[in-house]
Amino acid sequence: MTIRFALLGAGRIGQVHAKAVTSNPLAKLVAVAEISEEAANAVIAIYGGEFRDIDTIANSDDIDAVLICTPTNTHADLIEKFARAGKAIFCEKPIDLSIERVRACLKVVEETGAKLMVGFNRRFDPHFIALKETVEAGRIGKVEMVNIISRDPGAPPAEYIKVSGGIFKDMTIHDFDMARFLLGEEIDTVIASASVLVDPEIGELGDYDSANLILTTASGKQCAISNSRRATYGYDQRIEVHGSLGMVAAENQREVSIEVATKDGYTRPPLYDFFMTRYIAAYAAEITTFISMLTDDTPPTPSGQDGLRSLIIAEAALMSVAEGRAVKLSEVS
Amino acid sequence: MTIRFALLGAGRIGQVHAKAVTSNPLAKLVAVAEISEEAANAVIAIYGGEFRDIDTIANSDDIDAVLICTPTNTHADLIEKFARAGKAIFCEKPIDLSIERVRACLKVVEETGAKLMVGFNRRFDPHFIALKETVEAGRIGKVEMVNIISRDPGAPPAEYIKVSGGIFKDMTIHDFDMARFLLGEEIDTVIASASVLVDPEIGELGDYDSANLILTTASGKQCAISNSRRATYGYDQRIEVHGSLGMVAAENQREVSIEVATKDGYTRPPLYDFFMTRYIAAYAAEITTFISMLTDDTPPTPSGQDGLRSLIIAEAALMSVAEGRAVKLSEVS
Amino acid sequence: MTIRFALLGAGRIGQVHAKAVTSNPLAKLVAVAEISEEAANAVIAIYGGEFRDIDTIANSDDIDAVLICTPTNTHADLIEKFARAGKAIFCEKPIDLSIERVRACLKVVEETGAKLMVGFNRRFDPHFIALKETVEAGRIGKVEMVNIISRDPGAPPAEYIKVSGGIFKDMTIHDFDMARFLLGEEIDTVIASASVLVDPEIGELGDYDSANLILTTASGKQCAISNSRRATYGYDQRIEVHGSLGMVAAENQREVSIEVATKDGYTRPPLYDFFMTRYIAAYAAEITTFISMLTDDTPPTPSGQDGLRSLIIAEAALMSVAEGRAVKLSEVS
Amino acid sequence: MTIRFALLGAGRIGQVHAKAVTSNPLAKLVAVAEISEEAANAVIAIYGGEFRDIDTIANSDDIDAVLICTPTNTHADLIEKFARAGKAIFCEKPIDLSIERVRACLKVVEETGAKLMVGFNRRFDPHFIALKETVEAGRIGKVEMVNIISRDPGAPPAEYIKVSGGIFKDMTIHDFDMARFLLGEEIDTVIASASVLVDPEIGELGDYDSANLILTTASGKQCAISNSRRATYGYDQRIEVHGSLGMVAAENQREVSIEVATKDGYTRPPLYDFFMTRYIAAYAAEITTFISMLTDDTPPTPSGQDGLRSLIIAEAALMSVAEGRAVKLSEVS
Repeated sequence: MTIRFALLGAGRIGQVHAKAVTSNPLAKLVAVAEISEEAANAVIAIYGGEFRDIDTIANSDDIDAVLICTPTNTHADLIEKFARAGKAIFCEKPIDLSIERVRACLKVVEETGAKLMVGFNRRFDPHFIALKETVEAGRIGKVEMVNIISRDPGAPPAEYIKVSGGIFKDMTIHDFDMARFLLGEEIDTVIASASVLVDPEIGELGDYDSANLILTTASGKQCAISNSRRATYGYDQRIEVHGSLGMVAAENQREVSIEVATKDGYTRPPLYDFFMTRYIAAYAAEITTFISMLTDDTPPTPSGQDGLRSLIIAEAALMSVAEGRAVKLSEVS
Repeated sequence: MTIRFALLGAGRIGQVHAKAVTSNPLAKLVAVAEISEEAANAVIAIYGGEFRDIDTIANSDDIDAVLICTPTNTHADLIEKFARAGKAIFCEKPIDLSIERVRACLKVVEETGAKLMVGFNRRFDPHFIALKETVEAGRIGKVEMVNIISRDPGAPPAEYIKVSGGIFKDMTIHDFDMARFLLGEEIDTVIASASVLVDPEIGELGDYDSANLILTTASGKQCAISNSRRATYGYDQRIEVHGSLGMVAAENQREVSIEVATKDGYTRPPLYDFFMTRYIAAYAAEITTFISMLTDDTPPTPSGQDGLRSLIIAEAALMSVAEGRAVKLSEVS
Repeated sequence: MTIRFALLGAGRIGQVHAKAVTSNPLAKLVAVAEISEEAANAVIAIYGGEFRDIDTIANSDDIDAVLICTPTNTHADLIEKFARAGKAIFCEKPIDLSIERVRACLKVVEETGAKLMVGFNRRFDPHFIALKETVEAGRIGKVEMVNIISRDPGAPPAEYIKVSGGIFKDMTIHDFDMARFLLGEEIDTVIASASVLVDPEIGELGDYDSANLILTTASGKQCAISNSRRATYGYDQRIEVHGSLGMVAAENQREVSIEVATKDGYTRPPLYDFFMTRYIAAYAAEITTFISMLTDDTPPTPSGQDGLRSLIIAEAALMSVAEGRAVKLSEVS
Repeated sequence: MTIRFALLGAGRIGQVHAKAVTSNPLAKLVAVAEISEEAANAVIAIYGGEFRDIDTIANSDDIDAVLICTPTNTHADLIEKFARAGKAIFCEKPIDLSIERVRACLKVVEETGAKLMVGFNRRFDPHFIALKETVEAGRIGKVEMVNIISRDPGAPPAEYIKVSGGIFKDMTIHDFDMARFLLGEEIDTVIASASVLVDPEIGELGDYDSANLILTTASGKQCAISNSRRATYGYDQRIEVHGSLGMVAAENQREVSIEVATKDGYTRPPLYDFFMTRYIAAYAAEITTFISMLTDDTPPTPSGQDGLRSLIIAEAALMSVAEGRAVKLSEVS
């Protein structure tokens, strides 16, 4: 059985997924859609497939699944279209910046019975998988607390910030998903603190670049998240999970493991400085898993509901900062 | 010039300070006061000095300074008594659990011009001093965020919890002091989340054993603190300071630096499991510094005001948990 | 320009190279030769190409280069055959176990002007490349000493040992190549000590499983190598280079970077336990480099001479153990 | 029971031992002998005791034990004198640079039944003790190989080199003792390579500054030692012990455990740069152990025989370098 794919959006992340699809013996890239036919052809030249427009793909019998890698504001419409067309769907996060819109979209997914996976790539990082497996093997006992440090090497350009939905929906949303993934219990309450310390322009756009958040579950488990849009030393991605019997931590990653010792001390190189190099294995494993879930006919995970829940946490975090108080998710959703 | 000391309280921490005093060529232990004369004599047998009661010490001409190592509920009275007696005072934290009582006590200190150092021992830890020096040398640029993980190996007994003032005044207060020490700007607002995950008895006593807190300064600098009364792997004491140019972190400490590699992996020993072994160098340096400040006639630091400020943060944290909102320190003080 | 490849030998390492060739847009796998046509077809099913016998390949106009991945005792003959056929040659180490035979073979290579690369894969490991670049950038000053620890997870089966040429020609030969690569000066003298500590059967075959060696250059630079056929904790591959200004070290590699902390200590997983996973990136980069050298028309490195020199060191090491003395390479070659 | 000490030689190491003696409640410093009475009085001012000459000390009834911290060329004579005077003796390594002289001296020790401990301080380092305990607890199985890296921050002055007996008797002798301590089997054969890479003046004095050595036991266990008189990054002291079930390693030590991360990478401070700071705990534990052995009436370890054996290895190493061959200890002794 071979899953025949169409790629929607041939930008940076689309190319990563095209590579993953074409490296998999169980999958094939059949079509590529793109506003710019030239960009599409560049991808086709490397990974094969042919250029088709979105509607043609929706009506193609030789397409089983689509990879939605277009701008965020098109995601929900495309999910609905391809759910109705009976295609399996992989969609980059977020589904939409509006909770209401996501709910409407997921209703269509549910009604059509479409298979939908949302692109929370970090769940497929080998280090974080090992973290999760350690927790599930009971080595640290009952989970009590999760601590996430997640710092970007640098702030994105203002143009990006404007359409990003802000730091919580754009950046922290990955950490929210990790918190849910690792705590094993739904988040109940959020308190957050956010400020502008890196780039005043971010503040002028109404966004923040530095934040700390505390998520709490009904039983009192806690997750602390620390975010910044600045980390001169690279892409800082650390998670530790504390339980009744101990702790498991995932360390930062760098390209090469060397250390230079001189009179000035012992120096290791900076971390990976780009999410695509840091998470290169995760992106590949994500698509591999999606293909397996399709061939095995198991429900895709992370699901549309996973996407919705993290968006709700983001909305609650925004409200917490604005109102200076703990916000229950039930207030938002 | 030799500083002549009296030790008030010959318990565990009193003995640590007695050793520090008697190891210092500029200091001498002249007298020891204790409810139990037997306990006093045990200390005297090792470190010298003679048994005297509190009032006698206050009236002794051959005593320059006192070390208050008695139970917390006696601290404020003793500070006042010895301030009026013209003695220099080192007092273990906290001065008192009540902000009002501390204020009254510090008023006496001010009026008498007494020299008072409060025992925030962590400021004297060589690793944290190196952290501070790195920050002050400008190596990480302008400070933006401080992350503190502070986990005790195990919860103290219920009897201790009852009189401790709760986790924020007993345990987190050290982290509040570190936050102030490292942020270089006063705390303005506190938000905190706390729960009981380790020991239900702690909850029955109205206290918490697991907490996360976010402190914010007026300019938006943030400090995240993560606390637990449980860490099976030892006394977990990590601090990192993030600035515009980078980050500096202080690592955990263990007794021996060996690593065993077998088919099960690479294993290093657990951390120090007791604050007195983890901070042994800090306790010694603390008293050495106090003695230097007396011989150099410089104002003791951390001061009574430092003690007060951390207590105010603790009170604000309690209010934040109770009311589920960000609390400004000005609301408390 | 596309380099058209034939793969000779479709075993484990042949498959690794087939993958590297077919992942490279500048190369193509045209033919596969194997004693077992079934094994060849299994590789062809995944990576393409067609089955051809050795002689056909030598006479094929549509083949530019061959990958020799057959048993060691066929290497020299195949190199000669394909050198005469005008093909570029990548040959797994060693060229042969006999210095005389290697010399004769390299004479043919020289006379025909054939391009030959010998498979010392470790030169292409990203961590060791970073080591070399650090040295060349002058960060550790003038090189003085190299320390290599190289321990296999477990001893190979007796059948393999019998035809391997012994530990020095089979295992240490990689370390000899690294020593030459990093010292920047030819080895002059070898002293070695070897014993049987892991498996008595290895001793019965006249081989050793545990060895330490010291290589010296004419100017007195030294390289210490420590080998064992046993490392329960994984594939132990460490190198450090010491110079007048400092040191650079390449650390061991593991699959995931997590650490579990419990009352028993802090534990990281064992290392990679197989050379093909540890050096997966190196194998890919090796073939990529070979292809680049062919398309750029630069002389392949490591060359046949590099293969010869390491073999000479191995022979000298054997003589050193047998005679209990320092052996000059000039005595062997 | 209190052990009453006399200190012979009030230089740098003498002061370290004076401190250890006076910190121990079971010991007392009664007398100090020194060529310079002024130097003696400086030590007496801090640690107590009174000035006496060597002969007076030998005849003093109020002295139980002596600490020989005088220049090496006086050690053997002093040991003999105080052995005959019935005193317990702690002597800094080496007993003498001549094997013959050491043998004669140890004969006197044996005849008089004197208690003699030789100052191989590293046996008392807490990290190396943990290494030894791990080995003895069977965690790494049967010991097979020991790897020691021992590099000094910088070469000593020429005046010191001249009387030092050369790198093997002065510096490597500590590693020889560690090898014996950890291998659990006597050394049988030595092969060594040495050169002058750091300082040509050292070569002019007939000594070496860079060396690698391989020690072998009768059963084939091996110890590799790597030495240099130069390590810009501090005092490099690493040991790993490999056994049938795994490995245990002792890591390097630094004053503070911080790490600074910037765009240039992650930097930890250099190591301790002085043997007296690196081994401060070992020096204290050494004297504490000596005192315990006297009060418990157990034979002091490391003994005079331990001192002799390491000296024999050093002599064999010198012969190995000179003759370019493996040297059996039986050839030397």
